Amino acid sequence: MKAHAGPAEIARVCERIESLGFKPHIIPGEQRTAIGITGNNSPIDPADFEDLPGVAEAIRVSKPYKLVSRETKRENTAVTVNGVRVGCGDLVLCGGPCSVESRDQILECAHAVKAAGAQLLRGGAYKPRTSPYSFQGLGEAGLRYLAEAREATGLGIVTEAIDVETFDLVESYADCVQIGARNMQNFSLLRRAGRSRKPILLKRGMSSTLEEFLMAAEYILADGNYNVILCERGVRTFADHTRNTLDLSVVPAVQSLSHLPIIVDPSHGTGKRDKVLPMALAALAAGAAGLIVEVHPNPEKALSDGYQSLDPAQFAELAEDCRAISALLTSRRRVPVLAN
Amino acid sequence: MKAHAGPAEIARVCERIESLGFKPHIIPGEQRTAIGITGNNSPIDPADFEDLPGVAEAIRVSKPYKLVSRETKRENTAVTVNGVRVGCGDLVLCGGPCSVESRDQILECAHAVKAAGAQLLRGGAYKPRTSPYSFQGLGEAGLRYLAEAREATGLGIVTEAIDVETFDLVESYADCVQIGARNMQNFSLLRRAGRSRKPILLKRGMSSTLEEFLMAAEYILADGNYNVILCERGVRTFADHTRNTLDLSVVPAVQSLSHLPIIVDPSHGTGKRDKVLPMALAALAAGAAGLIVEVHPNPEKALSDGYQSLDPAQFAELAEDCRAISALLTSRRRVPVLAN
Amino acid sequence: MKAHAGPAEIARVCERIESLGFKPHIIPGEQRTAIGITGNNSPIDPADFEDLPGVAEAIRVSKPYKLVSRETKRENTAVTVNGVRVGCGDLVLCGGPCSVESRDQILECAHAVKAAGAQLLRGGAYKPRTSPYSFQGLGEAGLRYLAEAREATGLGIVTEAIDVETFDLVESYADCVQIGARNMQNFSLLRRAGRSRKPILLKRGMSSTLEEFLMAAEYILADGNYNVILCERGVRTFADHTRNTLDLSVVPAVQSLSHLPIIVDPSHGTGKRDKVLPMALAALAAGAAGLIVEVHPNPEKALSDGYQSLDPAQFAELAEDCRAISALLTSRRRVPVLAN
Amino acid sequence: MKAHAGPAEIARVCERIESLGFKPHIIPGEQRTAIGITGNNSPIDPADFEDLPGVAEAIRVSKPYKLVSRETKRENTAVTVNGVRVGCGDLVLCGGPCSVESRDQILECAHAVKAAGAQLLRGGAYKPRTSPYSFQGLGEAGLRYLAEAREATGLGIVTEAIDVETFDLVESYADCVQIGARNMQNFSLLRRAGRSRKPILLKRGMSSTLEEFLMAAEYILADGNYNVILCERGVRTFADHTRNTLDLSVVPAVQSLSHLPIIVDPSHGTGKRDKVLPMALAALAAGAAGLIVEVHPNPEKALSDGYQSLDPAQFAELAEDCRAISALLTSRRRVPVLAN
Repeated sequence: MKAHAGPAEIARVCERIESLGFKPHIIPGEQRTAIGITGNNSPIDPADFEDLPGVAEAIRVSKPYKLVSRETKRENTAVTVNGVRVGCGDLVLCGGPCSVESRDQILECAHAVKAAGAQLLRGGAYKPRTSPYSFQGLGEAGLRYLAEAREATGLGIVTEAIDVETFDLVESYADCVQIGARNMQNFSLLRRAGRSRKPILLKRGMSSTLEEFLMAAEYILADGNYNVILCERGVRTFADHTRNTLDLSVVPAVQSLSHLPIIVDPSHGTGKRDKVLPMALAALAAGAAGLIVEVHPNPEKALSDGYQSLDPAQFAELAEDCRAISALLTSRRRVPVLAN
Repeated sequence: MKAHAGPAEIARVCERIESLGFKPHIIPGEQRTAIGITGNNSPIDPADFEDLPGVAEAIRVSKPYKLVSRETKRENTAVTVNGVRVGCGDLVLCGGPCSVESRDQILECAHAVKAAGAQLLRGGAYKPRTSPYSFQGLGEAGLRYLAEAREATGLGIVTEAIDVETFDLVESYADCVQIGARNMQNFSLLRRAGRSRKPILLKRGMSSTLEEFLMAAEYILADGNYNVILCERGVRTFADHTRNTLDLSVVPAVQSLSHLPIIVDPSHGTGKRDKVLPMALAALAAGAAGLIVEVHPNPEKALSDGYQSLDPAQFAELAEDCRAISALLTSRRRVPVLAN
Repeated sequence: MKAHAGPAEIARVCERIESLGFKPHIIPGEQRTAIGITGNNSPIDPADFEDLPGVAEAIRVSKPYKLVSRETKRENTAVTVNGVRVGCGDLVLCGGPCSVESRDQILECAHAVKAAGAQLLRGGAYKPRTSPYSFQGLGEAGLRYLAEAREATGLGIVTEAIDVETFDLVESYADCVQIGARNMQNFSLLRRAGRSRKPILLKRGMSSTLEEFLMAAEYILADGNYNVILCERGVRTFADHTRNTLDLSVVPAVQSLSHLPIIVDPSHGTGKRDKVLPMALAALAAGAAGLIVEVHPNPEKALSDGYQSLDPAQFAELAEDCRAISALLTSRRRVPVLAN
Repeated sequence: MKAHAGPAEIARVCERIESLGFKPHIIPGEQRTAIGITGNNSPIDPADFEDLPGVAEAIRVSKPYKLVSRETKRENTAVTVNGVRVGCGDLVLCGGPCSVESRDQILECAHAVKAAGAQLLRGGAYKPRTSPYSFQGLGEAGLRYLAEAREATGLGIVTEAIDVETFDLVESYADCVQIGARNMQNFSLLRRAGRSRKPILLKRGMSSTLEEFLMAAEYILADGNYNVILCERGVRTFADHTRNTLDLSVVPAVQSLSHLPIIVDPSHGTGKRDKVLPMALAALAAGAAGLIVEVHPNPEKALSDGYQSLDPAQFAELAEDCRAISALLTSRRRVPVLAN
């Protein structure tokens, strides 16, 4: 739409779209509003829209993804999680344990990551585990402890929903709902996330191409939730010196194709404690909007993923280094970053 | 248990297991019954059981998977789908379209695969699609058409369940419920499959290791459903001459570690029509219990996966070659295959 | 060239090609002769040749590979090794140890594989080893023992050349010179192989695409040696149940793009003795022209790769099963296989 | 050896090693000298050496690599190339074209990368090309132009040797001889590099594990050349948004296992011009000792790899950002970096 286009003109375009049997998506931007069209199986004639008042131009999006595409929205999207804006240019740090194990553990951890300067707390109450015999998380009790930790520290809560059945419950506690790597193509879960009013953290699947990753996000936006944060967490390759191969090149690749913010998980991305700091710094240097890092008060005793968790002192050191590198990168950026 | 152990002795062992807080799994075999124990986080003393009447020996299973392991059950498991035994040594062929597209299409296809000698009909009513804008299947209408096709031909129906929400419906129509590659680690769906009384066809995930594949099956058995058929359908690698890399070595690898039957999908496994026949024959030569093949009355007009679908004549040819190779392999087997 | 074109007409076309600064390659076929042109950096006008007597048509080859392409030569190429034709439709078996370890070992092995019905003997005198401290082969002594084994059994010798420096020596003893997977893109070695008058067995590199594989063969043909046998030996993937992932789909893929024969190495392709037989049969079912299999009189004592070597009895069993499956496949082929 | 051990004591230990039939390797360190032993096929008794004067301790190296291992030498190795120390903590930048194309091109490029602050000039005179019909480099003329560029700018020359035959020539011109990814397991070439007195830049193979990478370096050290710089340049995976997947985690992984310096090639590592800057910064943040970057005066006209080459202005910008991030990282390092 043109910059001065008002609600009435936007509404009229949406009506036209619906009258043709398609679905309109209003995508507000800093300077002007875009309206995405989905539901068409074949190209639509731009002329159907260009005569309507307030319409600047009608363009065909050439990628299979539309709503997540930079062709549709040129400015970066910043996603707000409990008051913290992810993707606006400021460093966002999210720390916490793989699993919530007890009230004490998550409170201790929350205070530690808060003290280190993190804005968000991670911790799983529902855990997708390779073995049916492994610890599967504390469930709702874990969610309650997370909420207590938020009360105590003010940190926003990022926690995973592993299925549609428990999504309501997770959503009611979380500030940001994580969709894990194994569920990146669980389309029913993606659709449910699309109907949520909470921001979604979508992790890249273990063997997902960039296009599949963006299409998974497209599922969420297509159902109406435009608050999606992408997350690189390592992919599966032949390389055996790390648990996964952290593919940092996907950060600038996402940024050129999509307006959505992308953060990096160097803990799962390497699976080894001593690789977390160097890869965290590398992720920021590659342009990531933030990091999600496993922190445990006592990594040796963690019920899951202890070998890749930092202790609070290590996390504090990481956070300090990250702030320094982030400040440097910000100072050197020649073009201001636009975000809605 | 000893060969002569009766129900009372089996019941007593189960009681002892439950009294210790664990879960017993009765696994009937041709010659004797095994009882698996799960729910323990640490090793159990074999002496707790070896004094009970009817107990032959108590062994620790050294793998992370237990119920699917050949250490637990030495004989091959044959899974019966609509009267057809998969894994008993006889060739099982399942053919049909990627998606059910219409009543006529699936009926025509069913008659064609039946005529070619297949025993099972495949066809998706719910389709997991990379794009939210792609055809997602006909839903319950598709299931009804499949049921009609079964009526008309006697073929057993194999169709996919993509989420817990629609599982009941799929289960009520299907003779065998497929869990697709993208859902191989959708643990909620695996648990639901474990509570089903229908056999499950579990496809290997796109970047799944053998251990993860067996652990996914273990989820289903651990919830009580022992009728699981495994399926290799290609993994994701750097190789670009096929859509996926069909890893046939997993067939003998599964057979040495597990008693479950394994079949192969050469259609998704190659993604190219002209590779389906050679890889189908190769799969049987590698020891697969059967094949699941995409067949479409008019591949050029298929709504999904047409480029990898055979037409009825090609499938008939494939079936004939498969029977010849299967007969040869059976005749050369020196040791009889045991199956419960 | 037209079917009746004679030497004079062929010579005249070659002259025309050379006069334009390009290189002609005469490629004899069963029914007619093709002349490949290389050395051009941009398309050549077909009209430059179509007016010459005896020319049937001048076609542009659309692939980056030319001489290996089926577009250039439609009939299968059969490569003759010590009188054995590889690629003519008859099963070719090559067996032997990873390394020649002693005169007795290779003689014993040669007699065993001969007795089992193999036509070719493999054995490395020069070994490319990951570690500089591992056994690197017996060198020329190993070649002499191989020659003795040929004397004693009549088997043709397939042995690896690992560098240009030792190529002459290897070539002087071998009936077929192997280029190993690690050297698939050692272009100097490929050029040397191209100047050899011995047939070349070219193994696919560990992470080679099909196009790179064919381009490597193209190097050999471009220097004048048209006797190249391709060999799939497994590629590197995330899968860890086998040492490499045997990619049998490359067999039909090569056959549709190239006229060169392709065989399979199920020993390196799986790295596990108990997977060799099923994958050998699968390779033949997929259409391979033959197999190269590691056999050792006493696998437990092998200096290299013992865990994937068969003992003579296992190889005899494999050979018998292979002949049965090969006979079946031949009997079912509806179209005669043409080979020059 | 003890810190005060003198030449006579070192010589005596070497004699003892040789008398046992093994090979000694004198490895000078900042504080003390280590003597590696290779050539043994089984463990050696430490007691054979611990009684000799000047010996501090005899330790068994538990890895398959010995001379490259940090167990053998604890301090970082800095490799000097034309007076530039790689691995001493200071940023080293190497820029230049994929191929030397002409005298003018390489001189223009050399002046540009010099002006941007690079210390080393790269450029291939011999090119390993997938196709026999592609430009293969200018050969010795290219080497001469490189030498002229060194004269004109003082930059050290890094250029590739692709085979043993041309190694002498390359060595006579180069300040550092590159072994390319495709030749990482060309063991004859590695041995020749081991006999060179020039430093070697060893690139990681396309599907090389970390252990194979270190073993390739071990070949060079085992033949007496301890001046090896490792280089990560991307590995082959399923991911298709970059030409290769740059595996930056190998940087800290190498640093924990080996004393050798490691640099990164973000040009081949991504294959896309717009990914070079972010991944260059990421590489330094991950701890790389330097970068090797493709720069071309006119990338659109490059004979090879133009799409991944920076123009001089882009390289100058990259160099400036790199210096800023390197300075920051140096300032935050809490423990001084030791280098011999």
